[in-house]
Amino acid sequence: MTTLEAPARGRRRNRGAAAPTPGPRNAAFHRLENTLPRARAFSDDQVAAIHDTALRVLEELGIRVLLPEGRARFAAAGATVDEDSMMVRFDRAMVTEHLAKAPSSFTFRSRTGALDAPMGSNSLMFSPGGGCPNVTDRVRGRRPGDLQTFEEVTKLADGFGVIHKLSPSVEPQDVPVEFRHYATMRAQLTLSDKLPFVYARSSGQTRDTFAMIRLIHGLDEEEFAAEPRTQTVINTNSPRQLDRPMTQGIIDFAEAGQVSIITPFCLAGAMAPITMAGALTLSHAEAVAGVVLSQIVRPGVPVIYGAFCSNVDMKSGAPAFGTPEHIQANFGAGQLARHIGLPWRSAAGTASCAADAQGAGETQAALWGCLLAGANVIMHAAGWLEGGLVFGHEKFIADVETLETVAAALQSPGAGPEEIGFDAIAEVEPGGHFFAASHTMERYATAFAEPLVGTRANFGQWTEAGRPETAERATAIWQRAVAEHVPPAIDPARIDALDAFIAKRRAEGGARPMD
Amino acid sequence: MTTLEAPARGRRRNRGAAAPTPGPRNAAFHRLENTLPRARAFSDDQVAAIHDTALRVLEELGIRVLLPEGRARFAAAGATVDEDSMMVRFDRAMVTEHLAKAPSSFTFRSRTGALDAPMGSNSLMFSPGGGCPNVTDRVRGRRPGDLQTFEEVTKLADGFGVIHKLSPSVEPQDVPVEFRHYATMRAQLTLSDKLPFVYARSSGQTRDTFAMIRLIHGLDEEEFAAEPRTQTVINTNSPRQLDRPMTQGIIDFAEAGQVSIITPFCLAGAMAPITMAGALTLSHAEAVAGVVLSQIVRPGVPVIYGAFCSNVDMKSGAPAFGTPEHIQANFGAGQLARHIGLPWRSAAGTASCAADAQGAGETQAALWGCLLAGANVIMHAAGWLEGGLVFGHEKFIADVETLETVAAALQSPGAGPEEIGFDAIAEVEPGGHFFAASHTMERYATAFAEPLVGTRANFGQWTEAGRPETAERATAIWQRAVAEHVPPAIDPARIDALDAFIAKRRAEGGARPMD
Repeated sequence: MTTLEAPARGRRRNRGAAAPTPGPRNAAFHRLENTLPRARAFSDDQVAAIHDTALRVLEELGIRVLLPEGRARFAAAGATVDEDSMMVRFDRAMVTEHLAKAPSSFTFRSRTGALDAPMGSNSLMFSPGGGCPNVTDRVRGRRPGDLQTFEEVTKLADGFGVIHKLSPSVEPQDVPVEFRHYATMRAQLTLSDKLPFVYARSSGQTRDTFAMIRLIHGLDEEEFAAEPRTQTVINTNSPRQLDRPMTQGIIDFAEAGQVSIITPFCLAGAMAPITMAGALTLSHAEAVAGVVLSQIVRPGVPVIYGAFCSNVDMKSGAPAFGTPEHIQANFGAGQLARHIGLPWRSAAGTASCAADAQGAGETQAALWGCLLAGANVIMHAAGWLEGGLVFGHEKFIADVETLETVAAALQSPGAGPEEIGFDAIAEVEPGGHFFAASHTMERYATAFAEPLVGTRANFGQWTEAGRPETAERATAIWQRAVAEHVPPAIDPARIDALDAFIAKRRAEGGARPMD
Repeated sequence: MTTLEAPARGRRRNRGAAAPTPGPRNAAFHRLENTLPRARAFSDDQVAAIHDTALRVLEELGIRVLLPEGRARFAAAGATVDEDSMMVRFDRAMVTEHLAKAPSSFTFRSRTGALDAPMGSNSLMFSPGGGCPNVTDRVRGRRPGDLQTFEEVTKLADGFGVIHKLSPSVEPQDVPVEFRHYATMRAQLTLSDKLPFVYARSSGQTRDTFAMIRLIHGLDEEEFAAEPRTQTVINTNSPRQLDRPMTQGIIDFAEAGQVSIITPFCLAGAMAPITMAGALTLSHAEAVAGVVLSQIVRPGVPVIYGAFCSNVDMKSGAPAFGTPEHIQANFGAGQLARHIGLPWRSAAGTASCAADAQGAGETQAALWGCLLAGANVIMHAAGWLEGGLVFGHEKFIADVETLETVAAALQSPGAGPEEIGFDAIAEVEPGGHFFAASHTMERYATAFAEPLVGTRANFGQWTEAGRPETAERATAIWQRAVAEHVPPAIDPARIDALDAFIAKRRAEGGARPMD
């Protein structure tokens, strides 16, 4: 069944890419520009009203900041702090002043420079599903995340050009928490040159992971702090609360010139108002507070505005994704990000337990919401199931197909005289066909995107092959991508230094998450 | 397993709709405005160049018109006709003159007026999959289309507000061809008030079906011809050929004031150039030729510009849908339709044999291509499988979920002071939740779209229910929608007259398709 055979991972998408085999599929997609138009959920006046109300929330209601150092930083910058209630209130002039310091664009640097990633304007990055305690695939079933799976997903993310950054895909629960960050950062740095992710769980862990990046990138502290090379996600505890590790994370990342993606996870009806405008008002207030803190710590430090706003199922309280409300929230969040002029991140996702039609449908609906909203980073774009409780290997492959479709569609198809092809049309008789036309023969090998897991087998061929559905066909594809993965060529001395650092730090007891 | 129970068909989407139970789900979606922005594949200069080259194709290469009456009509209007080769060539002044006569917008009338449908500008209609020789569902398997299934699909199309028109869903192969149009039109007219579809297979059949619409709508010939109440799809025989029934169809529909949707089915690399600009140039030339014929026959008659342009798999020649090329072709076709100022139709679709992730993914990618291209009619938006060889009942339900998601996302979420909800935000303590907030309690019953086949069950609940995937869950939903369908209340005298007409015409031998 040639038609249903899993494509070789090393097989290049025909268009563009020129990297030698083996290497990532569709390497040319490593840098994307979102050429789609921007959708709107609100009028300009409504956007201004939401922004204005968010400033009023910060001014009149305030944010509870659990970390004393966070409150001290805010107070030093002119915010009003009530130590008993831990509430911080910001006047709008102060907020506006600090917001203006955050850059509207910057570039994430990579080890070799080849995967440097611009951020802002029309830049577009797809990130794999992240934060999943569990993992599932058709071979081993659903189970708690472990280090082997974290490494597998890192290889998968590295193996597809359309995946632009690494994510905390699955939680390696087989590694003690005080050593876990060594294992996950080592995997990211040695298996891929893509932008690594750091969990801001404590200053100790953050310092360790920054040191590891410096060792692999070959940088001293000053060089490292000069340009962003990693990122973390700061989730507020909506509503209106910044907890201790998250506040510490903003401070630590800003001091080191690294990027906080400040993302309230506001599910309308649960931790945010049930209206999308209300949920976005709260989300915006919290994100702005986080951005302000980053600029207080280090004026001008790159930071990403985040919004992950969807709704819950009001019967069960379960989170929902790819819903109309999720799409509208994305449109509105994009308007708010542009209103304050910051690069921004959003997220796709699905509540589905299976990599089936619902899973594909919700993830893609959410994806188009993000795309049309102009999100610069789209998290959970591949492999997320059960609202993030599970990373699915087959789901990842199916989603990568969609991302590749979008990435190819964003390229200009061209319409010069050769593409318009009057002579080609003249060459073929009425009622004839173009299969053998010279215009076709010159182009057929590279004309069209090649599917990843999709098949064009007819019903007879598909039946002969045992009627494998998408998820079933995806198994061999991820297995092959993992098996054939080739790590980047890194100076072995740097890896030795990394391992020596890890050994030393482990011997010292590692670093625990903060409370 | 309440969470996984199939929603009652009569259950209303909470927002908007006010029709009494039973009735269509989400009846409020019967009229949609596409509020999304428009995407572009080409610059304005490139669009002008494609249009210009299409006129050159018509002028220098011409179209082969197989029907003598068609050639005669073109010749009478000033085209150059070569009777030996049956080639018709048009100078661009003539084309431009006739194109200008076609209206940029019009309204499809319905029996009661309640389902009148504007066409043009931002109007948006979703149409079920059509033209399928086969049908499949999880109960009865894959089989040739029959009348019972045609009736079932008509009930399904009628039962969901987000489906805006009827389609020639499955071919009822158990009805002799000379009687088939009576059966399909009777089903459409008695089971639904939505816009009926007529196959232009011969003048005799067209006359019969027009007569049937007049009987049910209660109109004489003059009233009927005054405003459009039905539509057909005219597929050219790409490249550059109009066959006999299709040419006759344009003439018959224009004379009766009814709507031809003139749609070259140009698969790049097969019946059209392998470049998307080339495929669109050919498609545009053919569609324009058809539009011109409609305006020659009856200046000002409503007509819809069609484009259904995707690519083939160059290894197998199989058609492909939801590809990057399909998306780009849609963007470009929308630009061309706006360039000539006509309402236009496109189509979604998938090559998948199953209602699985690939089926959902391709159909939705194609759908967004159509939406962002501003297509006024999106055919094959629900239920199409195997590139149109099969209509799938479960696939229909899964696709309707996506269409409902899009339709709800197109509505304004609102951002007045009540939606922005400062007081709601003030009501909830930092770190608290909004489940019990008064702002939530006032709105929770109607705040969010209700899923159709999607489930938010967690893994435990889903496992207890036997881990049903989307297609499995969809079975009970279509069964219930079919079983609970309530036909429109039509004066029984009209139905009697319809049946008398059919009996008479059957006794006369019916009407055969033309060769």
